[in-house]
This record gives sequence, structure tokens and C-alpha cells, in this order.
Amino acid sequence: MNILIVHAHPEPLSFTTAMKDHAVEVLEKLGHQVEVSDLYAMNFNPIASREDFSELSHPEYMNYALEQRHACKNKQIAADIQIEIEKVQKADLVILSFPMYWTSVPAILKGWIDRVFVSGIFYGGKRFYNHGGMVGKKALLSFTLGGREHMFGDHAIHGSIEDLLLPIQRGTLAYAGFDVLPPFTAYHVPYISNEARQQILLDYQQYLHNLENLPALDFPKLEQFDDKLYPLG
Amino acid sequence: MNILIVHAHPEPLSFTTAMKDHAVEVLEKLGHQVEVSDLYAMNFNPIASREDFSELSHPEYMNYALEQRHACKNKQIAADIQIEIEKVQKADLVILSFPMYWTSVPAILKGWIDRVFVSGIFYGGKRFYNHGGMVGKKALLSFTLGGREHMFGDHAIHGSIEDLLLPIQRGTLAYAGFDVLPPFTAYHVPYISNEARQQILLDYQQYLHNLENLPALDFPKLEQFDDKLYPLG
Repeated sequence: MNILIVHAHPEPLSFTTAMKDHAVEVLEKLGHQVEVSDLYAMNFNPIASREDFSELSHPEYMNYALEQRHACKNKQIAADIQIEIEKVQKADLVILSFPMYWTSVPAILKGWIDRVFVSGIFYGGKRFYNHGGMVGKKALLSFTLGGREHMFGDHAIHGSIEDLLLPIQRGTLAYAGFDVLPPFTAYHVPYISNEARQQILLDYQQYLHNLENLPALDFPKLEQFDDKLYPLG
Repeated sequence: MNILIVHAHPEPLSFTTAMKDHAVEVLEKLGHQVEVSDLYAMNFNPIASREDFSELSHPEYMNYALEQRHACKNKQIAADIQIEIEKVQKADLVILSFPMYWTSVPAILKGWIDRVFVSGIFYGGKRFYNHGGMVGKKALLSFTLGGREHMFGDHAIHGSIEDLLLPIQRGTLAYAGFDVLPPFTAYHVPYISNEARQQILLDYQQYLHNLENLPALDFPKLEQFDDKLYPLG
């Protein structure tokens, strides 16, 4: 497979970064082609703005999604965005690698999504979920967090991690058409021993070896809804 | 009340921005003091990094939350962050005003949270949820989106909007101690008539007039959990 890892951590010596480096090594050994977008190292600009288009179809009033559609058609999208779009288009699997910040992705990674997942290519009209622009590709989250595993779950203090991941796994990746694989979650990372971290790297290695067998998470299919997107039956 | 509106839209002529302006007018007429952080107008930097601290307690390896705690104690946090922290500290109510991007906040607003909600002031140790640093303050979301109301809900195509808002309403605002008021949601904004938009402004005005009567959303209380944060009973 062609694999794109989009990585977002401000500290090159972090365990999250070690996990990313480990993933590159393991996946290449397995014969995959791996590309990395290291957003901090790239100094990636996460702010969606009119500067993202060399020409606006409606300069007097900017609708961001509409200008995305227009700019993609006319090759007027900013070069840094175009490069990332092409990396995703080339990839069979996209891995988002990050430390959880406020039960979500860091801003620099949110901005990569805001700017790169352009209307017209990733979605548009009735092209979303199982008809989204990225159908046929897989995606997964690989992240670290401070909390312990027992703090997440239906009756746990922070609720279920699946629920916290809905905006990114369902509202973003599945919406754009990706098959979303179960995430790899590294709990309590800032507080554990080196031995425990080594174990996480081993678990991650096993997870990556098993990638092709992971069943995708279940998300809506357009065929379950009518023309106006009311649920059928 | 002292009210802080944190606004994030790239287009000054947008309806989201009109809603923000309307809120300022309505709230001031009601006798409140209103301050606005217009993140795009401020060119706010959303990227958490070591540049946020004038000195690091551990320059050889940066743990962002640890450096936040250290820098707040020693007044070594970046000036743009310090200003925003003080605005929040002064506020009785914080309103986050934004267009929904990928069922979440735009990156510039996510970065305002990542950088401003510092460890040591907003949370830390066992100070979170109903013991969080912002206890006694209220917060609410006011946002626009493209989808129609019937596309959200338990059996709807995008699931319930409350679930999509969990990371921001529960994992962020409630976690930091805010009482989170029910959000004001403006559906289908890019596609509706001017008359429908005028109606939304009227609805928003009524919502803002009724602020003091809105019951806060229900989120965990630490007393429901034991020392290790396992659920009691």
C-alpha cells in the first residue's frame, strides 16, 4: 500500500513522534511505501482563509467551500494545499498521528483537514459517506493521551472514546468516504515507565502487522436514507 | 455580566459574523459588558509550540502542559496567550461563535483553546469538571452549519448534534469547570433566504434575552467517582 502519515506533535523527542517513527519503520519493512507529512516540521499553516485561492470566484464575499470547488477546478488552490491533496490522492491508507488535545486533534492537524479536505474532491453534492470522494481508501487514528483507559467508557468519567472521536472518525473521515479502521490508542503516556512505553511500541507493531485484517468501523450508508436524507424504513 | 465572545470566521460579511455583531448589540442593550476576540481579525496564532514560553523548565524535552503550568506561575507565557487568559478570567460568560467546520470548530478556534486553556489555571490535578478552574462561569456555543436540522438526531444521517459537540462541550468547556448552556444552532445557513436569516437573528435575540433562565447541560461531577476516578455505586 501507499501510506500517508500525517503527524502533529510540537516536540520531536515525544513518544507520539517515536510511535510515528516506529510506524514508518514497521510499515516499510512490511513492503509498504510510506510518506510523512510532519506538520510542525513543515510549519504547516492551519488557518483557512481567502489567501488559499489565487483567484476568488466571488471576491466581494468569500464562501470557503464554494471557493474550494472553484479553485480545484481551475487549479487556483494554494500550493501547500495542492501538495497535501495529491499525497492523500496517492495514498491507500491515511494515518493521523497526534497527541489528543482537549479530546480532539491539535489545531495544526484540524487546520490540515479544514484546508486539505476540499469540497469538490473530498465531498460535494450527494458524494459523501459511502459515496464520498475518498471511497476505496482507508484511514485510521493513532494517538496518545494522558488519561487512563478506565476513565473512558459509557459510564466512565469522560464518556466513551468512540463518542469523543465522532467528529473526526464519522463527521470527517467516514464522511469523506474513507473506510475508518479502529484507532490505536496509547493511554496515560506522560506518566508511565519506559518499559510500559516499549510495550506500547510492541502493541503498535502488532496492530500495524494486522492492518489488512481490521474490519472498518460501521458508519451510515446513503442507501439507508431517502432523497432528502430522511432515514428509510 | 461581563461577556467574552470568541469569534472565528474568515469572512467579515458572513452571516456568522452578522450573528456575532447582533449578539454584541443585543447584549449591550441588556446592560452587559461585551468584549470580542475576533480571531481572524487579530491574526491569532493557533499553533501550540515551545515559542509560547519565554523560558522552558525543561528545554531539552518540551511537555506542553507541564510548561504551561511552569510559565503561568512564573509569568513566562506568551503575551498573546496571557491577554486571552485575562479576558476569560474577567468574563462571567464566554460565547464561542463560529461556523461548523468538519463537525467541529475551525482550526483557529481550536488553537485558541489549545493555547489559552492552560494547565494550572483552567485545570490541573483533581481540578476539573465541577472542580475545574472556571467554576462559576458560564459558556455556550453559537454556530452556523450547512446541514438541515433533520440530518441531525439519534437516527439521522449525521447522528445527534449533542454527540458531535461532546469534545467541545464536555471534554473542553465542562472539563474546565464552565456551566455549559444549551447551544444556539443556525442550520442550513448558506442555502436559505434573507427572510429566513432575519428569523434566525430574531430567534438568536430571544435566546440571548433568555440567557439567565437557561439550565446548564448535565455533565459529570467528581463526587460521582472515587479517588482513582472509577464510578461510585
